Amino acid sequence: MPKIEIITIGDEILIGQIVDTNSAWMATELNNAGFEITQITSVHDNADHITNSLNEALERVDIVLFTGGIGPTKDDITKQTLCEFFKTKLVFNEQVLEDINTLLKHRSRALNELTASQAMVPENCVVIRNKLGTAPITWFEKDGKIIVSMPGVPYEMKNVMSTEIIPRLKEHFVTSTIIHKTVQVYGIPESALALKIESWENALPENIKLAYLPHYGIVKLRLSGYSDDMLGVEFLLNQQISKLTGILGNDIIAYNDEPLEKNIGLMLLSKKLKIATAESCTGGNIAHVITSVSGSSQYFTGGIIAYSNEIKINQLKVPAKYISDFGAVSRQVVEQMAKGVKTVTGADIAVATSGIAGPTGGTEYKPVGTVWIAVAKDNSVLSREFKFNGNRLQVIERATQTALYMIREFVIS
Amino acid sequence: MPKIEIITIGDEILIGQIVDTNSAWMATELNNAGFEITQITSVHDNADHITNSLNEALERVDIVLFTGGIGPTKDDITKQTLCEFFKTKLVFNEQVLEDINTLLKHRSRALNELTASQAMVPENCVVIRNKLGTAPITWFEKDGKIIVSMPGVPYEMKNVMSTEIIPRLKEHFVTSTIIHKTVQVYGIPESALALKIESWENALPENIKLAYLPHYGIVKLRLSGYSDDMLGVEFLLNQQISKLTGILGNDIIAYNDEPLEKNIGLMLLSKKLKIATAESCTGGNIAHVITSVSGSSQYFTGGIIAYSNEIKINQLKVPAKYISDFGAVSRQVVEQMAKGVKTVTGADIAVATSGIAGPTGGTEYKPVGTVWIAVAKDNSVLSREFKFNGNRLQVIERATQTALYMIREFVIS
Repeated sequence: MPKIEIITIGDEILIGQIVDTNSAWMATELNNAGFEITQITSVHDNADHITNSLNEALERVDIVLFTGGIGPTKDDITKQTLCEFFKTKLVFNEQVLEDINTLLKHRSRALNELTASQAMVPENCVVIRNKLGTAPITWFEKDGKIIVSMPGVPYEMKNVMSTEIIPRLKEHFVTSTIIHKTVQVYGIPESALALKIESWENALPENIKLAYLPHYGIVKLRLSGYSDDMLGVEFLLNQQISKLTGILGNDIIAYNDEPLEKNIGLMLLSKKLKIATAESCTGGNIAHVITSVSGSSQYFTGGIIAYSNEIKINQLKVPAKYISDFGAVSRQVVEQMAKGVKTVTGADIAVATSGIAGPTGGTEYKPVGTVWIAVAKDNSVLSREFKFNGNRLQVIERATQTALYMIREFVIS
Repeated sequence: MPKIEIITIGDEILIGQIVDTNSAWMATELNNAGFEITQITSVHDNADHITNSLNEALERVDIVLFTGGIGPTKDDITKQTLCEFFKTKLVFNEQVLEDINTLLKHRSRALNELTASQAMVPENCVVIRNKLGTAPITWFEKDGKIIVSMPGVPYEMKNVMSTEIIPRLKEHFVTSTIIHKTVQVYGIPESALALKIESWENALPENIKLAYLPHYGIVKLRLSGYSDDMLGVEFLLNQQISKLTGILGNDIIAYNDEPLEKNIGLMLLSKKLKIATAESCTGGNIAHVITSVSGSSQYFTGGIIAYSNEIKINQLKVPAKYISDFGAVSRQVVEQMAKGVKTVTGADIAVATSGIAGPTGGTEYKPVGTVWIAVAKDNSVLSREFKFNGNRLQVIERATQTALYMIREFVIS
């Protein structure tokens, strides 16, 4: 498989101001296209550092993809650095200027000298047009290797990768097949799972690799098959997954790499059930996660975020006495929240949360991380109390994922 | 400043299955502690590759921090690789086994042979205890340089970094001061902003570096001051920011690096105003973002997620005629949603959204990305129509950020 190194340029990544989400997207897309990402490297906006990382990468790989560091401002020096590396000079490119003008017109903005300077491009390279931004993409070839510099702005990068760079790379290199299949296992800790499937794992064919990816109570088992024979490797993978099913049975909750909310959506659709949410401590995140799935309007009616007790009482018909007697974070309140929102929205299933996300608000008996979750369907309610670890966002995220598991339990039961 | 390279180990990053969020967190913490992150590198679970990246890093930096690749399963080989690199062997460590047993007992799990193997550690290293997981941390010294291997599980890594590794590194190295200050500018495109502040930027002292970080209509200007004189550099930075304020005035919306939701929370608190949300296309995300801020229960009453028209009509008192005459995605509907939720929740301010997040549901006149946003306060309502680019999650995120800007407009006006 042709090997690729991704080099991201920008101080903001190295001081932790932004998380590099581009590389994961690129890796997924390139992997599916038959390329192997050998390394991802993040370096400063510094000419020596960029040059050095490029030299090191060219020792290892066939293709180097740079993202970032090509904005119009002074701190961005990638273009000049590549010019020096390839011993060429900047020349004016009329097409790029035209593209910039079109883009600015569309955004009702005027051309200024900084933006205009984006039309200066290295002489000895292929210039690829950027339809969504002012920085053009530059494509260099050296000793059979390809070096591309593209913007770090995610939607510009994604557009140019999909429409230009991946298709061109596929023309340049012979790509072989790699297929990933993921099985999701719920409720077995990673090491116990590893022992349970040890003999199966040891007997895996040589061209199938296994990885364990634990995530909030789920372990994703990822099988990667490498071969030039696509049908053959697909068959092999399916054979192994069928054996695995014999060992794990119902502990397998999905045969794909989709998030739980997507799998739940498919279940709700197939059972023609509609769902609603009543959230206190999760503050709308369960609804957000459910509605992040395209087509969710077919099975999600809506929800009520009941942060204040008044909303719990007035909108969700929680008796005020429950709150005074048992507290807002209690079985009684969360069960009524679920029933209440089910009635109000006319949904078939409802989920509710009430808890203490922290960092303040905890007590001796109900410490930060205490969360009650209830799921109501027909006339029955399932409710459980949890003590989640972590900071505010982690408690919210864990409560959200756990609520989704509980919805799944109810939907399949 | 002592230089650090972070090396993350794991196929899951290189095939794009997970985003590396650890490195950004580590970079922020280490930066604040006076260390410079020179490079972040992600490599495969492969012995040669790990060894090679370590050799390259030792050429560049004083400290190498490995994360990941030390789980109990077969695909994790970092411990063995470091053993070979440092020409040492694995020995049994009783303290580690004891820690593992304590941890498992707490989780009501039994010790198995894979987990027990975590108690085998390299002989020539300092073993640092991991209080939250079974993999111990190993700390090596070689020719005055430090090499540490720690878990990739975020909360284990964060705990050990904060309590053990950063304090030990600060004992080992003389650290100097680096201070970052951020100013957030709204509504001026990056290149226009650069021209507007060009002469100020050119006159910046040599030990102050400027970076432009555009993010959804905001440009964050980050000034980094380097010095051994903490008070001096703080003074210099404040002086420069005061000059910048003279140039940009009201275009500056914040003098910190906090997200908009946090700054809005502070404004609402100081004005003693309470806010509520009525969301259709954003599906709970505005409420989620608002409630991700600690203490938000003091100014957020709650919200209604009105995905179905029935909820818009029954809960938010949107006249059914508005929906049939103008459509759910219209000024009339979104304004009533804002007014409705304000009344229902007793809030002082309310924000509402209605739009088409896509990828389906668009029409010729209301294409995917069309979003109406309204903010209501007292008896007035501000509403605007937007056409956002991007996929479903991007449209949701852009609409959320824009709604926050509109709230800010109303709160400060």
